[in-house]
Amino acid sequence: MIVKNSDEIERCPVVMDNVEGTCIQWLVSKFDGSPNFAMRRFTLVPGGRIGLHQHPWEHEIYILKGSGVAYNDEEKVQVKAGDVVYIPGNEPHGYDNTGGDELMFICMIPNEGDRR
Amino acid sequence: MIVKNSDEIERCPVVMDNVEGTCIQWLVSKFDGSPNFAMRRFTLVPGGRIGLHQHPWEHEIYILKGSGVAYNDEEKVQVKAGDVVYIPGNEPHGYDNTGGDELMFICMIPNEGDRR
Repeated sequence: MIVKNSDEIERCPVVMDNVEGTCIQWLVSKFDGSPNFAMRRFTLVPGGRIGLHQHPWEHEIYILKGSGVAYNDEEKVQVKAGDVVYIPGNEPHGYDNTGGDELMFICMIPNEGDRR
Repeated sequence: MIVKNSDEIERCPVVMDNVEGTCIQWLVSKFDGSPNFAMRRFTLVPGGRIGLHQHPWEHEIYILKGSGVAYNDEEKVQVKAGDVVYIPGNEPHGYDNTGGDELMFICMIPNEGDRR
């Protein structure tokens, strides 16, 4: 059993095209011995965004704090703390923090998507 | 993309030996098309518990609210909102809500563990 406090886990700025004001923390991953999937936590400052992108693996997301929009190439949906989002593999997707506070969410991926 | 509000997802009492005062919600799973892993949310009333048990699949847990203890057959660790717990496959584990409020956490499993 491994127990960690998420606030003490390193925060790294996400440096990618179309991404602004976003940090990632890897909460649980293959480096903890987890064989199948990884848990990351994203924090977007107000106005921060992860622009439209796509990859073969899926996301399961739980919004912890704040509000914003999640979108694909066809629709844009308001999301807030307590909402759950499922993004199938290969679907273009993005998120904008449109609220006045931090937008924070858990985002799970299969280990296939952990390219570190 | 599927978006749901977690408070609107059905809560089912967990009926198992050694479990008291515990509800489960399946937030995202194979029934949403997710190919690899499932996101569940557990809520334990004060005094509620999920007693020591084990299975071949791992857990990745994020504590959303409340406080309690997570334990295996060797150690017992205090946990609170914002903590992350990793339980390897086949490790005996359990949780007690030792606080005065609800203990709520996200618990991820590979689809192998979804026996519904």
